Order: sequence, then structure tokens, then C-alpha cells
Amino acid sequence: MAPTTTQQWLVEDTTGFDALKLQKDVPIPALGDHDCLVEIKAVSLNYRDLIIPKGKYPFPLALPVIPASDGAGTVVSVGSRVSEFKPGDKVCTLFNQGHQAGSLTPKSIGTGLGGAVNGTLREYGVFEETGLVRMPENLTFNEGATLSCAALTAWNALYGQNPLKPGDWVLTQGTGGVSIFAIQFAVAAGATVIATTSSDEKAQKLTALGAKHVINYKTDSEWGTTAAKITPGGEGVHHVVEVGGPESMRQSFKAVKIDGTITVIGFLGGVKGGPSPLEALNNICSIRGVLVGSRQQFQDMNHAIEANDINPVVDPNVFGFDKVLDAYQYQWDQKHFGKVVVSIP
Amino acid sequence: MAPTTTQQWLVEDTTGFDALKLQKDVPIPALGDHDCLVEIKAVSLNYRDLIIPKGKYPFPLALPVIPASDGAGTVVSVGSRVSEFKPGDKVCTLFNQGHQAGSLTPKSIGTGLGGAVNGTLREYGVFEETGLVRMPENLTFNEGATLSCAALTAWNALYGQNPLKPGDWVLTQGTGGVSIFAIQFAVAAGATVIATTSSDEKAQKLTALGAKHVINYKTDSEWGTTAAKITPGGEGVHHVVEVGGPESMRQSFKAVKIDGTITVIGFLGGVKGGPSPLEALNNICSIRGVLVGSRQQFQDMNHAIEANDINPVVDPNVFGFDKVLDAYQYQWDQKHFGKVVVSIP
Amino acid sequence: MAPTTTQQWLVEDTTGFDALKLQKDVPIPALGDHDCLVEIKAVSLNYRDLIIPKGKYPFPLALPVIPASDGAGTVVSVGSRVSEFKPGDKVCTLFNQGHQAGSLTPKSIGTGLGGAVNGTLREYGVFEETGLVRMPENLTFNEGATLSCAALTAWNALYGQNPLKPGDWVLTQGTGGVSIFAIQFAVAAGATVIATTSSDEKAQKLTALGAKHVINYKTDSEWGTTAAKITPGGEGVHHVVEVGGPESMRQSFKAVKIDGTITVIGFLGGVKGGPSPLEALNNICSIRGVLVGSRQQFQDMNHAIEANDINPVVDPNVFGFDKVLDAYQYQWDQKHFGKVVVSIP
Amino acid sequence: MAPTTTQQWLVEDTTGFDALKLQKDVPIPALGDHDCLVEIKAVSLNYRDLIIPKGKYPFPLALPVIPASDGAGTVVSVGSRVSEFKPGDKVCTLFNQGHQAGSLTPKSIGTGLGGAVNGTLREYGVFEETGLVRMPENLTFNEGATLSCAALTAWNALYGQNPLKPGDWVLTQGTGGVSIFAIQFAVAAGATVIATTSSDEKAQKLTALGAKHVINYKTDSEWGTTAAKITPGGEGVHHVVEVGGPESMRQSFKAVKIDGTITVIGFLGGVKGGPSPLEALNNICSIRGVLVGSRQQFQDMNHAIEANDINPVVDPNVFGFDKVLDAYQYQWDQKHFGKVVVSIP
Repeated sequence: MAPTTTQQWLVEDTTGFDALKLQKDVPIPALGDHDCLVEIKAVSLNYRDLIIPKGKYPFPLALPVIPASDGAGTVVSVGSRVSEFKPGDKVCTLFNQGHQAGSLTPKSIGTGLGGAVNGTLREYGVFEETGLVRMPENLTFNEGATLSCAALTAWNALYGQNPLKPGDWVLTQGTGGVSIFAIQFAVAAGATVIATTSSDEKAQKLTALGAKHVINYKTDSEWGTTAAKITPGGEGVHHVVEVGGPESMRQSFKAVKIDGTITVIGFLGGVKGGPSPLEALNNICSIRGVLVGSRQQFQDMNHAIEANDINPVVDPNVFGFDKVLDAYQYQWDQKHFGKVVVSIP
Repeated sequence: MAPTTTQQWLVEDTTGFDALKLQKDVPIPALGDHDCLVEIKAVSLNYRDLIIPKGKYPFPLALPVIPASDGAGTVVSVGSRVSEFKPGDKVCTLFNQGHQAGSLTPKSIGTGLGGAVNGTLREYGVFEETGLVRMPENLTFNEGATLSCAALTAWNALYGQNPLKPGDWVLTQGTGGVSIFAIQFAVAAGATVIATTSSDEKAQKLTALGAKHVINYKTDSEWGTTAAKITPGGEGVHHVVEVGGPESMRQSFKAVKIDGTITVIGFLGGVKGGPSPLEALNNICSIRGVLVGSRQQFQDMNHAIEANDINPVVDPNVFGFDKVLDAYQYQWDQKHFGKVVVSIP
Repeated sequence: MAPTTTQQWLVEDTTGFDALKLQKDVPIPALGDHDCLVEIKAVSLNYRDLIIPKGKYPFPLALPVIPASDGAGTVVSVGSRVSEFKPGDKVCTLFNQGHQAGSLTPKSIGTGLGGAVNGTLREYGVFEETGLVRMPENLTFNEGATLSCAALTAWNALYGQNPLKPGDWVLTQGTGGVSIFAIQFAVAAGATVIATTSSDEKAQKLTALGAKHVINYKTDSEWGTTAAKITPGGEGVHHVVEVGGPESMRQSFKAVKIDGTITVIGFLGGVKGGPSPLEALNNICSIRGVLVGSRQQFQDMNHAIEANDINPVVDPNVFGFDKVLDAYQYQWDQKHFGKVVVSIP
Repeated sequence: MAPTTTQQWLVEDTTGFDALKLQKDVPIPALGDHDCLVEIKAVSLNYRDLIIPKGKYPFPLALPVIPASDGAGTVVSVGSRVSEFKPGDKVCTLFNQGHQAGSLTPKSIGTGLGGAVNGTLREYGVFEETGLVRMPENLTFNEGATLSCAALTAWNALYGQNPLKPGDWVLTQGTGGVSIFAIQFAVAAGATVIATTSSDEKAQKLTALGAKHVINYKTDSEWGTTAAKITPGGEGVHHVVEVGGPESMRQSFKAVKIDGTITVIGFLGGVKGGPSPLEALNNICSIRGVLVGSRQQFQDMNHAIEANDINPVVDPNVFGFDKVLDAYQYQWDQKHFGKVVVSIP
């Protein structure tokens, strides 16, 4: 029998992680024509989820809000006109629920789970069928829960424009979620990966994931130049997945090939200082900002994940539904390698 | 009978326009297998040509060098293996002589006429056939001489990535050569153009060229926002052809649509200050630097020029071959509207 | 006040045009979450609509069915979650209601109006918002009603793959709806059009629409070869919009350029005989079948229609809602030039 | 010291394999500006090479001609303006010597080695630098000699239009050179391959190369339908590499996905009979003919071969330079699996 209530976490304000509260016995609304009721089995956290309760998120929020955008679970019941899913189907949530295909629109930007609209940190959630995709068959729920943001952003970086071909070179930065997925996708696609990191231990993990070259950016501040030199003829890489900030950007310009693409997916280092965007001319390259991706891209990506049996890297420390605050703190303290997951029994 | 000597201008050093000297009776070298001897009938100037003798050009030069990259003329004789041209053919010069198709390479960047290699300000010049394209049939030599840099840069901006479709919106800035060509190409392609300028008189000329909207950037410092508001739903323009610099870039970010492209083709305002390239993420757009274009793009463009009978805008003040210094000064003083041309009788 | 009943035409069986019956006082169903009630103001007919009651349509039908797929009208009321439209908005209907973006799917093929699901020949119809697009502002309802199939098919032919650039050459065949729209779109996009037809009178109309060359296929059975010869260097056309059949296809192979595209959008002449698809190798070209297009393409097309103030060609003989049978017969007798429209007062 | 003469094979007429004659002490011509003298170390045969002396080749020939188009060797000396190669460089030959990038032109079609111009079956050959590419570093000469036609055709099929993504499905036919390369490239790119063949023994080899599914077309005449059923949702494959002929084409239509591409690269079964190209509409797909590929594609492909350490499949029976007739007969008798190579000591 279909459940009538759910437990859910809520970000009540922006006073810090303590603003997250667990609510019980919240009624589940009736399903609209195209709605699916999903029993959420796992949720993964993104950096964005951490800074929302800390008041550092620069985009509009609809507080109080159920946090988190990444989730995987099982369809429990469906509305009268749902045509893509049936009870029992395993699904993942789409970040911007309205981003179906092609470009985001001003309107679809306002449909991001866990910020603009209620997210995934709950036992049961109702989503329109257009806000869900089929989970890759080769994944567990914990793995499937990592795809919504980090994986899809990496996929969009590599395939959204200037699509990766076998033999291309890709430069990734560090060991965040997007960077790790970018390595996995690029390796599966027959491209060659240069990764950067700050420790030999992480370098070994990156190599195990398929990165052919790893540069320690702590000991080699000119890592962009080093990366370019590794490529054939020193011509540079086709793709840089840029997650850093102004100083990192400076190196990315040195690493990128003529007509290559630097995809900006985050700027942990802020936006002050650093090179001018006009350097795109001096380096004859493209700089592209991407915000996750569309449902159509999510489906394409899932086919690639299945075909190549790609397993997302999940941090071994998986948290229970009642340990959400610990999960937040664990990721905040940067103790993780791979995605931090909350598993819901 | 084929000529054996030529007159030619030479930039001897970087002491200013006086560094340009006219040489007479310079022997014309024997033709290599793939060489064409071209009688040059017209040359147009670019901003780059002006700053080379002034020592402000930031790229490598091989001084002394015959200046100018843009030329049109008639093939006089051809080497033993030339297959594309025969005597009598009308041709234009390719800026980067080695840029045949696809992306520039580090090597082909070093083949720019009038800087890295000898240019067009001479009566006769020898070029490999791969460094020439057929001149559009609907143009005079004075018009054909304007295409090599300004027109091809505009074409590359609109068709090199994210190709323009009818119904798209394009924002151009000012009345420089690239901007005017961008208006003409966009209008011919069924796109809608918003242009900026600083005077009502120029605004009228831009409107006559087909710009549907003209914004005075002197009286409207938020011209980027204004441009976006003009577009359907206020969503912004698909393409910005960016010629300004940091402050201009700031407005371009406001004008551009999600997944739109800001093509950086110059930065008259320098590169200091202004927004970060990481703003590409906040605005979910692409910034792309282009350096002229390939021979293949030049040929495609010429088909578009012929099909739509596009006539390049040539400043009415055309200069003789002995008045080259006056031509340089005239453009330096910004007295022109349209391309400044030197005609060789 | 919202209407509660509607009149509607119905194809009851496949016994001929007499199988079309007018029904009165049919109750309008309650609106689902994403439904819009549309007052239909005009409908245009397609060849497919004629052959459905004649039992010649080779695809699955859900009889009895309200015929016709092309319609324009006004939104009267909207369901609780409709976000794109509000009462008073002018809209057009999408042919395959489920074809939102990218490729058709086996499922979305089964959502074609007027065949698989109820169509537009009624006073009021209920459509999900994803099955509607905003009507171009420059059009009347009669004009807007012509877009759903013929215009979108032409757009898909020219922009769905190998997108048209200014300067490209397009070959169209005859004066059917798709061919006329293809001429209009290609001309607006700065391409050059060669059209074929069978009479001087129609040739004049095609020239007036912007076709630069017209070939009489009755007097020139080698019209494909003739078309190729007209193009620069005799290299052939970039796009053929193929509507004929085996014999026509033979000429299309002669007309098309290397790597050009022959888009097959119909085969009035049947599929028996004619050249082999393997001729695609001998001619080094692509043959592409298209079935109308997606909602995203419809929206792009409408922007192009507005920007270039393209006016669909409507046959001057517009029929009333009670004269539907006359309209069918008129088109069947091929008395029309331009789209046959039924106007609903 | 540079050699002054060479041995070479010559097809003198079209009377059969006996028309191949070995010539000795043929003078090597002086190098033109852009010429490279290449010591050829290995040559591979294509089906086309076999039918040329048999008089079955349907395209223009310039007899007598040095046969074969596929070769690998070492640059011995270079002309005065050669910039891409130096003595000692290992190179492969380009099939259509004039096909640099983009589409073939009518002129570049007439530059095919071993038919329109002298080919590779000689100890030393002179080629313009634009007719050579750098050999992948991971290959032997015997392997490098297999790339010019079969590999580049497969690459063009998968990347020339509708570029392959990880997760896509590819259907190959049989064990010819193009089919085997298509499997290798598709597997390296993270796609899933369905191959067809006629024996269990060959099936095992195809599986070893990475094909995930193998269908025996002798026991399953509806192999196209079977292939489609294997794909997710039974939707069909993204790419078919079609080498068969009319009957094969019929199955390819059944196998291909909506908007998928059937690339026609040969028709061993002739062109008579079989389905109409208009079936492209009924199946909503593209049929594309490709004739080998461009130099730019060859370079891209070689990067992919190096990055993924792809080793071409060479038949173990390698022939000496004096055993060319045996090599022709061996391939004619279809005793080979993989490319038949002539090695020159």
C-alpha cells in the first residue's frame, strides 16, 4: 500500500548546518497527472548543498526547503497520464526539473532541486515524470544517487559543445566529484587524461581511475604549462574542466590547445583577480560555463555508464538518514574521496 | 610579358609611420611549383597594420616586412603545379597563409601576412596557391581587398562555432570593419541585429546596413542590459561580436543569452580589469577568441557574399599607392567609416 | 465563460471523404494539470489528411478520429500547472504531440494529431501545453494554421542536419506546401534556390517567392543535371528537398553536391523502382528521411518567421467550417497554390 | 646517399592479375618544392586493387599505373619548402592525395593513389607532403600500411557526421577491413558493437576484438531485426556500417534507430534490386555514402590509434615484394582475416 506520510529534512534558514531539521509524518500530497511518487533510497551531497545552510549560495532560494538535488530510488505509484515509468522502476532525479533538452531557459533555471524547489533528502518525494530518468542498470542506489549533478556536469563539459573524440586530451583538476566523473567518461571514450592533485596518495587513485598523467599542483605551480608540454607537439589539451578559480584559470589558458574549450563548472577560489576573459583571444580558445545539464543529456550519459560499466566513486563512509549532519560535516572537512552518500534504508 | 621587378612598401622598424619606406625595382623571385604571381590592385588596412610600425603589436614580427595583409588582384603567372588558378583569375589574399581548414596550428599562426611574412602593399607579390582564394564575382578590387581580415573574422565569429540561424539575434559594437561585416552577414542570414554606436549619424548608417536596433553607448552605459531587453522575452542575444575590452565585456555578459557566444575578436580597450572569465559560468555562456579564419571559411564566405550581393563598405576616401602614409594617418585619426583602401593603378 | 461543448469533424472509417461527419454538442473534457483549452480559429490540410479517409494512409490510425493536424487558435483556459501559456495566448498545434526535442522515439511517433490521436478540425480542443507553441506574432490565424506540418518539415530539412548557411544552394521540387516553405526559408537565410515546376504560371509565382532559378521538369526531364550545372563549378546543390519518388530521386542524385543532403519528405510517386540507396556512395551524399519536426525546432522556426516577416502562402480560396468536404475535394483536385485553409469563425 | 632508381609494380592493362609487372631501375624524379621521397616499407591491399587489373573498377584509371593506395614508410629526403616532415620520419600515404579537409571536390576525387595517380607498390615513391601523414607511433610498418583506406573509411563512417558517443550502438557486417576497424574504433570510443559473420570461428575473433554481440547472418536472415532487438528498448543502432548490397541494405533499415545513420562504404552485392532510398523516410534515418576520408580526419584517427594503442589486424600471411601476385590471389580467394600486407625489406 502506498505510504501517506514521509520523513524529510528541511533547511529552515541560513544559520549553518544546525538549520537542518528532520521532520516526521509529513503528509504526501496527491499525485498530479504526470507525477510519480518515488521512494528515495540514496542521496549524494554537493558542495552547493553545504553552502546553502551557511548562507553562501549566491542564487535565489525558496526557504524553508528540502535540501539536496541528487537522489536515486524506486517509483511507488504514478499519476494518471504518466507514460515513461511504472511502479518498481528505478530512477534518478534531474537537477533542474524543467531542463528537458537544449539550453536552459530563465524559467528552467528556477527549478533546481534542493534550492528553488524541494529536494531529495526525504523518504518519499513526488516528482513529475519529466524530472526523473531511468537509473543505469549496472548501478546500486548509492551509485545512482551520485549522477544528478557531478556526473551530468562532467558529461555536459565533454559532450555539450565540441564533443570529445577518441584521441583527444582532457585536463582535470583535483579530486572533486565532477573531476572524477570527467576522468571516467574521458577514459571510457578513448581520450587521454591529465589530472592534477596535491598528494601522491590521491595521484595513485587518479591513476587507478585511468588518468594517464598526474601533475602535483602543489609542487608544480606551472601545471598548465606542464600539461601542455605532455601533449603531442606541446599543442595543449582539447578540454579543460575548470573547477578552481582565477589562479587556476591562468594555468588553464596555458594548458589549452588552439580552439580548445575550458569548461567552467565552479570556482572554489572565487572570481576576483586572475586573467581577463579577453585572454580567450590571445589563446584562441573557448571558455564555456555550464550549469549541470538537460534530461536528454542525462539519458545519453546513462547509456554510456551502462555500456562501459562505469561505477561512480562513492566515499566508503556512507551515512544513514539520521546522520545527515555528520555527512555534511564530513564533506565540509574534506575528508572524502568520491561522492558522500546518505543511504535511506 | 611578366614583370621582373616590383615596387613595394616596407616597415623597416617600429619608430612610427615614418618607418614605412617605398622601395622601387625590387626583383620578383622565380615562381616555385605552387606559386602564383599576383598583380595587386587594391589593399585595405587593419588596425593591426597601424600599430606594427608604432611598436605596439604584441605578436612576433619579422622586420623589415612588407606591410598589410588584405589584398585583391589578378593572377599574372603560375608555377608548374598550380591547379586552382590560371593567369587572369581575380584573387584575394589569405591572412594566415598556412591556415587551410579547421583550427590554426602553432605553425600556421606564424604565417600572417604583413607581420610574420611579407604582406600585400606592393605592385606584385608571389603567393602559394593555398594562400589565395577566388575573389567574389560581384566585387570590385577595392571591395575585394577588404575581406581578408575584417570580413573573415566576422564570418568566423558567426559560423565558426554555434552557427547563426535565421531568427537568431546578434549584437555588434561600433563601426569598425569586423562589426560592419558582422551586420551585413547577419542580416543576409535572416538574423536580427542590434548595433551600438556613439552618434546619431553613424546610427543612421548602421540602420541603412540593416541593423534593426541601434543603441547609443555614450548615452546608455548599460547598453548590454538594454540589448537583452529588446530580445524576445528579454532572454538576450545569441551572438555578441566583442571588439571592446573589459568594460565592454561587462555589458556583453549582460546582453548574451544562455548558451550564447561572445566572440572576442579584439580589445581596443586593453585587457586590464573588467570581469573574470569565470563569469562565463554565472551567465552560462561561451566566450570564444577567434583570429581571422581559414581558407575554407574564406571560400564559404565568398559564396555568401556572391549569393547575397553583399558589398563591403569602403570609405569614400580611397588612397593611391604613393599616399600610403596618408592612408595610415587617416585611419589612425579615425576619420573613416568603412574600410580604408589603397588602390594600385 | 468557458465553453462546455464543441462541434467537431470526425473520420469514422476509410470509405472516402463521405466518412467525414460533423458532430455537434460534444462535451469538452475537464482540463488535466498541464492541459490548455484552445479555441481553434483556423486549420490547414495536408495530403495525409486526404488519404486517411480514403484508406491509403500506411501508418496506424485510431478511428474514429478528429482529422487534421495543423491548427491555430487562442488559449481559453489552462490547467493548474500550465506554465507556458495563459488565456488569450495565440498558439499553433504540434504534429507529433510527444516530439519535444531531439529525435522522435517509437512512442512519440504514436502521438500524431489527426491520425493516432484526435486532431484540429473542431471548434475547441484540449492539448497539453507541450503540444502547443506560441504562434508567430506577424501571422494571421489562417497563416499560423499552415505551419505545423509543411513549414516544420521544410525547416527540419534545412536545419535538422547539415544546417543551411548563406551562400548554399537549395533545390526544391514543385509547388507543394513543404517546397514553398523551403523556398521561403532558404531565401530568408541567404541561400540560393533552384525550384522546379511544370508551368510558366507557377514558375512566375516561384520566382516571386525568391527562387533564383526555375526549371520546367516537363520540358527538361534531366532537371537534376540542369540544376547541378547552374551551381558554381557545376558542383551541385547542398540540399535537395525531395518530395517526388523514384524517378525524381534519380534526378536528385544528379543535382546534389558531394556531401550534400537529399531530404526525403514524401514520395507522391511511390517507392517502386528507381535508384538504389547504395547510390549514396556513388554520389557521396546523404539521404535523410524526416517526419515533421520537434517542438524545439518549431519554436526556432517561429523566431525565423517573425524576424524575416515570412508570410505563408495561403490559397485564396479559404473554406468555412461547414465546407470541410469542399476543402478536401479542392485540394484533392489540385486546384490550389499554397495551403488550403479552413477558417473557423 | 639518396637512391636514384626504384623497383616498382605496374598495372599495364586490365587483362587480369598477370597484367601486373615488376619494373627495375626506374629513375626517381627530382623533388619538387613540397615533395618528399619516401622509402616504402609496407603496402596493404584493398578489394579495389584486385578489381582494377580485372577491369571491374567502375571509376577512371590512368593506365599504366603503379597499383595500391595504402603504404607506410620512411621519409628519405625532402623538397626545399617541405615543412611538416624531415628525413627519418615515418609516414603513411593518403588515398585521395588532394583531399585535405572538409568535403571531397570533383578535382580531389581524381587524385586517388593506385588508380588515377601512381600508387604505393614500389620501393621508393615521391609524394607531396600534403599527401602524407605521420604514422602512429605505436604501429609497425606492416600495421601502418593498413590505415589509408580501410581504417580511414571506418573512421569517417563513425565520426564524419553524427559523431559516435560512448553508449551508442554500432552494427558492423562481416570481417572485411573496414568492418574490423569500425569494431576497434567503436570499442575504443565506449560504444557497443553488434557484428555479423558467417562462422563461429570468425565470431570468436570478432568477440576477441570487442564486439559484444555477434549474429550469424547465414543462420539468421533477419539479422537486422535481431540487431535492433538487442538494443535498449529495441530502438535500434545509431550507426550501421553497410558493406553488403541491396539485401544487406534491407536488413540495415530494420536495424537502424530513428535518426540513425547507415553509412554505405561498399556494395559487394551490387546495386540492383533491394529497397528504395525513399525508405529513409519510412525509417526516419540517414543513408550516407563515404569515400575514404580527408587528411585532417587521418590525423585525428591516428591520435585515436595512439591513445588507445589500437593494433590493426594484419593477416599472418605477409608477402614479400616479389610475391605481389600471390598476395593478390590470396585475398581474391578470401583466405585472409585482417589486412593482406606486402612487406618491402
